[in-house]
Amino acid sequence: MLQPVMHILKQKNIVLASGSPRRKELVENIGLKVQLCSSLFEENLDPHSFKSFSEFVEETALQKVLEVENRLICEGNVPDIVIGADTMVTLGKEMFGKPTSEHEAFEMLSRLSGRGHTVYTGVVVKSLDEIVKFTEKTNVFFGKMDEEQIRGYIATGEPMDKAGGYGIQGVGGSFVERVEGDYFTVVGLPLFRLCSVLYDMFKHEILL
Amino acid sequence: MLQPVMHILKQKNIVLASGSPRRKELVENIGLKVQLCSSLFEENLDPHSFKSFSEFVEETALQKVLEVENRLICEGNVPDIVIGADTMVTLGKEMFGKPTSEHEAFEMLSRLSGRGHTVYTGVVVKSLDEIVKFTEKTNVFFGKMDEEQIRGYIATGEPMDKAGGYGIQGVGGSFVERVEGDYFTVVGLPLFRLCSVLYDMFKHEILL
Repeated sequence: MLQPVMHILKQKNIVLASGSPRRKELVENIGLKVQLCSSLFEENLDPHSFKSFSEFVEETALQKVLEVENRLICEGNVPDIVIGADTMVTLGKEMFGKPTSEHEAFEMLSRLSGRGHTVYTGVVVKSLDEIVKFTEKTNVFFGKMDEEQIRGYIATGEPMDKAGGYGIQGVGGSFVERVEGDYFTVVGLPLFRLCSVLYDMFKHEILL
Repeated sequence: MLQPVMHILKQKNIVLASGSPRRKELVENIGLKVQLCSSLFEENLDPHSFKSFSEFVEETALQKVLEVENRLICEGNVPDIVIGADTMVTLGKEMFGKPTSEHEAFEMLSRLSGRGHTVYTGVVVKSLDEIVKFTEKTNVFFGKMDEEQIRGYIATGEPMDKAGGYGIQGVGGSFVERVEGDYFTVVGLPLFRLCSVLYDMFKHEILL
């Protein structure tokens, strides 16, 4: 989608405020060159102080962006665009972050087995004079997993650094019967909306 | 999903009857080791002689599997399992294969723009004493693409070797607003159903 503005984006210093190699791979797959800069924001917002999951993930994404932008400006490396994202797995009113132990991973995956849940990814795109925020949500339906399959999956090590205890782009993808929404929201960065925002931000420069 | 039978699968000579690096990457992502062997089957079946898209892609997948299996047996390299797949993009009653020219790619993508279409992937899994066939279908919804975006996408070269003229796992993913079904069906190999079949084939060997 971005090809008509790619020559403009290539001249920008675009920073992805994330330490996630999966997010970096996604933006590289669509031809964007970005600098990866992990946020030092503590991610300690209280979800109960927000009206919705969307507001919570957007605010976390915003705080990541602001922390990274401020730090880079202090270092004299002023970014043109900073992109931040935060992903959360929810089941009903519950939020699943990254499991803190194998026991917790087992509990999470047992809960997700044989049913649907919703993944929220909040995104913030900040240019020098504009901030755009949005949230995408995608429904994910897991097939029924037996205890051996869950224990075997945890033994691969994949669940431990991922929201909800699974990675859809890895071994975890084999448990997913279907999705409804943008698949890339589940990986961690909704590409369609992100590219739409970037296209709208820069299309007026095409003819300059 | 396959972890409880992975030690069994690792001792098998598994062949993927495909030349697609995308399919190979998918099976490797879930931890399966396979040998890639492109089928020499001509893919010349007449779609109009089949009752449904499903029967057509399954039969094409079957012919790929049989050709590869026969050839390997003649070479004295007898496979334990051969997996074949065929993917097709459909819009209403029309089938979109790989575009044969940039002009045709432009026509296809213009037709897909701003609407939903359905991707069928037929899969055949053949062991020494069993053949399992199935088809998965996934709905894909493209956002509206303008002419410059389509031309820019074609200029990346990505559309030319892909059914429907796009690759969802590459630059094409940025055009996709949402999917309904197994995302991996669109990449070319429905992982959930494939893994379910392999698990059912080998789970009785776990305790042997």
